[in-house]
Formats: sequence, C-alpha cells, structure tokens
Amino acid sequence: MQFGIIGSGSWATALAKILTDNQHVIHWWIRDANSINHIQQRHHNPHYLNSAYFEPSLLKMSSDVNEVVKHCDVVVMAVPSAYIADALSGLSKDALKDKKIVSAIKGILPESNQLLNEYLADNFNTDINKYFTLLGPCHAEEVASEKLSYLTFSGVDESVAAEIAAHFKTEYMNTVTNHDINGVQYAAVLKNIYALGAGIAHGLEYGDNFLSVYIANSADEMVKFSRKVIHDFSLENTDINYAASVYLGDLLVTCYSLYSRNRMFGNMIGKGYSVKAAQLELNMVAEGYNASRCIFKTNEALKADIPIATTIYQILWEHLSPQEGFKKIEGFLQ
Amino acid sequence: MQFGIIGSGSWATALAKILTDNQHVIHWWIRDANSINHIQQRHHNPHYLNSAYFEPSLLKMSSDVNEVVKHCDVVVMAVPSAYIADALSGLSKDALKDKKIVSAIKGILPESNQLLNEYLADNFNTDINKYFTLLGPCHAEEVASEKLSYLTFSGVDESVAAEIAAHFKTEYMNTVTNHDINGVQYAAVLKNIYALGAGIAHGLEYGDNFLSVYIANSADEMVKFSRKVIHDFSLENTDINYAASVYLGDLLVTCYSLYSRNRMFGNMIGKGYSVKAAQLELNMVAEGYNASRCIFKTNEALKADIPIATTIYQILWEHLSPQEGFKKIEGFLQ
Repeated sequence: MQFGIIGSGSWATALAKILTDNQHVIHWWIRDANSINHIQQRHHNPHYLNSAYFEPSLLKMSSDVNEVVKHCDVVVMAVPSAYIADALSGLSKDALKDKKIVSAIKGILPESNQLLNEYLADNFNTDINKYFTLLGPCHAEEVASEKLSYLTFSGVDESVAAEIAAHFKTEYMNTVTNHDINGVQYAAVLKNIYALGAGIAHGLEYGDNFLSVYIANSADEMVKFSRKVIHDFSLENTDINYAASVYLGDLLVTCYSLYSRNRMFGNMIGKGYSVKAAQLELNMVAEGYNASRCIFKTNEALKADIPIATTIYQILWEHLSPQEGFKKIEGFLQ
Repeated sequence: MQFGIIGSGSWATALAKILTDNQHVIHWWIRDANSINHIQQRHHNPHYLNSAYFEPSLLKMSSDVNEVVKHCDVVVMAVPSAYIADALSGLSKDALKDKKIVSAIKGILPESNQLLNEYLADNFNTDINKYFTLLGPCHAEEVASEKLSYLTFSGVDESVAAEIAAHFKTEYMNTVTNHDINGVQYAAVLKNIYALGAGIAHGLEYGDNFLSVYIANSADEMVKFSRKVIHDFSLENTDINYAASVYLGDLLVTCYSLYSRNRMFGNMIGKGYSVKAAQLELNMVAEGYNASRCIFKTNEALKADIPIATTIYQILWEHLSPQEGFKKIEGFLQ
C-alpha cells in the first residue's frame, strides 16, 4: 500500500510519524512550501510535534494535492473538518475514485453539515466500501512521545479495515477494528460537544462529583444517538461494544484533558465570556462549537434523546445562559 | 423517620452534615468519646471534614452502638467494610430486626467475603426488603464544600428507597433511585480495583490515551460482572442504565481522582514498591487491595469475563510483576 497524507497539523504529523516509523514511504501534502523545506532540512515539522524526527528518504512532500493523491492508493485525510473542503478543492472529480480513503477527521463539514464520506460521495463519486475511519483516544503529543495508544479502524468491510490497520501498528500503537462507520464518526463529533460542556461546568465551578455524573450521562446520550443512527441507517449488525476505546475511551480522554481546546473554550463560556470574546481570547474556535449546531440540525430529523447536547447547543447558539443551561442539565442527570 | 449513623469518618461526617442540613435530629455512633466532646463543644469533627459545622441541638451522639440503634428506625452504616463487623459486635442479635438499614459501605466484608446485606442476614436476621444502599460518585470533601453531587438509593422496593432518598435531598445533593441492590454494591467494589489499577498504570508511565482506554474497558467489565450477578441472582428486571452515576459515574470519579487512596497505592505498586512497602509508606491499605481478592473469590463461582480485575488481583496477591500484568492487560483492551 502506498500511503498519502493530506494535512500537516499535529494529528497529520503524528500519523506521518507512525507510518514512517513502520518504514513506509509517504506522500505528504503540506500546503506551506516553507514547512516542506524545513522538514527536508531539519527533519522536524516546524509548527507541530517538533520532537518527532523524520527520516527524509521516507518523505515525498508536495504542496500540490493532485501530485500527492496521484502517487498513492490509500489517502489519509487529516485536516480539521472546517478546512478539508478547501484542501481538496484543487482535486479533479475523479482523482479519488480508485483510492481507499481513510478519514482521520473528527468532525462534520460545517457548510454542508455532512460527514466526510457523504461530502466525498457528492463531490468525488467515492464509494462507501472504500471509505474507512481512523479514530480513537489519541492526543498527538502522546504519539510523539511514544506512549502506548489505541486507534480504531472502521469500515463497512472490516477485513479491509484490518489490512489498513496493520500498517499503523507499532510498539506504541495498538489497533482495533470495527464496522460501525457512521456511529464512530458521530461519536467523534459528539465527544467534542460534551467536552466543551465539561469546560462550561468547570467554569461554573461544579466539582469532580458532578463532572463524573455529567460525563457518564453524556456517554449514555452518545450511545443513544449512535443506536438511533444505526437504526435509521438500517445497518444489520448492531452488536457494538460502546465501552470500547473509540466510543467511551475517546469521550473520556477529551472530557478529562485539561489541555483540550474544547474544554478551555467551554471554561471561558462558563466564566461568562461570550462566544465571540472566547474566540478572540483563545484565537480559535473549538470543534465542539460548530459540532453542537451540526448535531442539533442532524437531530431535527433523527430525533434521538440527547438533551445534554441540545442544551449545550442552546447555550452556544441561542443565548441560553450557562447557569440556566446547566440548571436544566442537572435535571436530566441520573 | 429517625436516623442513626454508625461511624465518624469523612463519609459518615458528610452524611451527618446532609441530614442535619435538612434539620433532622440524628443519633450518631462515634467510637471515640473525645471526638464526641469536641463536636459538642466546637461543632466540628476534629478528625474529618473540619469545615462542616454541626448545630449541636440536632446531634444525639453516643459511643454505645445499642443506644444509637435503639432510638432510630433508619440505621445508616458508614464504617469502612473492614471495620463494620467490629463496630456492630456489641449489638444484640435482634437489635436491627425492625430497622431499615441503609448501607453507605463501598466494599465487601473481607473476613466472610460477603456484601453487608449477606453479613447482616447471617448475624442479625435482617430482611433484604428493609435493606438499602446509598452509593454514587461522592467525594466527602465536595459535600463539605456543598458542590452539587448525586447519590443513588437502591432497594428491592424502589419506592421505599425513594422515601429515604427524599431526606437526603438538599440544594447541593440530588438523589436517584434504583432497584439493583446487588449490582450497585459490586460496582462500588469493582471500581476500587480499577482505580488501583489506574494508579499502577500511572506508576508504569502509561499516558492519558492508554488510561482512557483502560477505564473504558474497565467500565465494560463492570457491566459484564453486574449482568452476571443479576442473572445468577435471578432478578427479573434487567432494565438498568449502566451509564448512570452509580455505575459509570462512580468509576470515573474514582479512577480520575488524583487524591484517591486506591490510585496512590497503585501508583506506588507501579513504581516498584511491594504491597507491604506501599502500605507502610502510605500508612493504609487501599480498599481495592482487599476488594481484588474478594472479587476474585466471588468470581470463581460466578465466572464473569473480567480479565482486567483478575490481572490486578494477580499483581497484588500472586506476585505477577506490574509490567507483565499490564502487558497482559494491553492485549485485552479494545
């Protein structure tokens, strides 16, 4: 398998490290030519995971996305969901047709409110049977420092997912497979909303007891949403372990991490900052912010029982005060 | 309802605060007469939760357990499981017969390897229909500082559990009810084992990614054990939400708390201390230590699929090295 990676943020850089640690040559799309030069000369990404060393003979870098895609049979997409459409905009409509796509994107494309596979099918005629996801609780920083982590590869055809997964298994990376291609993607989106909410709760000075109850009940909502997705998508096999790393594990690491951008953003909302002020102060928008609206919209049709996520949406988008919002949430918790 | 409390540690003191904040007169068994004098004169427990103020007119304290039990119809047991048999040893065999018992004990009695209800039935002819538990994610320190928490009251008759629960509801305490009297008690025991294991993992320098996967899979084991208990005890209603606070919530707060004794103890084991050395250094035995053996024994008959808890037992009791033990656990995780 010839691998390509689209993106050069911290997660893309971590994935490049994993594949090159396995001696794979990678075709790597990096938008910024200066970064390419720096990596070529200094063997490190100047902006992300500086500690990860790259063997130059294993890197085929280019700022031309067509060039990268052309040379590989597996394309790993690792750009934040808000920027992926732009990153792929130079690609011809058939460029991805015969490729296996592996999405490492934890989010919904905000403009079209679609999962990546839906967006790619609409715009590049891709086939769901060649679409896979690579998800799970994985701070890129811990990949850089080679702390043992678990990645889950999902695909309609789980055996192909397992073949791809084998290339990502290293001493510090275990892999798991799964066939719940829709459920894992929604779980990855929902967790950012709940983590943002955990930050709001912290900002409102709730304690550890409350936080544990809030997160446990968030896990319950995530399962309810995922089951509803499966039901609505009429998938047959529903024998899914929702306590596995890609569902509950990822929720936990995101909610409990003090360094999570979602949590920091939420903390400022809880302390009384407006969304706009929090954005300016932190110089970023947390993924949970857009995610809350995407899920709210998706759920207008799906009608899963997700009052926590809905209330966080109302706080972020409909001017419900964090205090009142969390008073409501208190009443939902068991 | 006239409430009695057996015990004066931090959790017993927190429960005394909750009931007296609701203006209940409480009959309170405190072994040490000096503590009784101190509380009478200074309105604070000298040893635990010093910040909790007690209105003296609401306290009927005695170091005579018969005196305390005689005056109440609900007896709240809040002594560590290893000491409860001793605390009750002065009671006559019929003293508890007409009382409602509320267990706030998170453990198995180590000598007889029994849940408290089993021990009381054998020694005091108590009736399971008058036995209730009060459990959930609740650091006593957060009760003292009046941070919102959730307590779950369980009983075979859930409506009586709800009546009792009503007396514990305050501005800072929400209550939930449940009928899974065996499952909640075992979940409270198991969580200490998993938290001790989280400490070992930390001591072995696993990172946050791994910890989240370990805890998610521990939650899965806890559910498997609890389902098996229900099946074996032939309870009919198995409509249980295992993501609720009393199961998953309590596991989370215990595993993620840096101040948990189980976690501290485990951390020393992971760093290479022997069990005996960790005991001497910390001047205590973590509950998860005995719990791991109790669960191991119980599971010899039950045969639930709990490889993580079994491996932690082997590390603590059968000289399996923490490194090798966690290498095994790595292979169990999904």
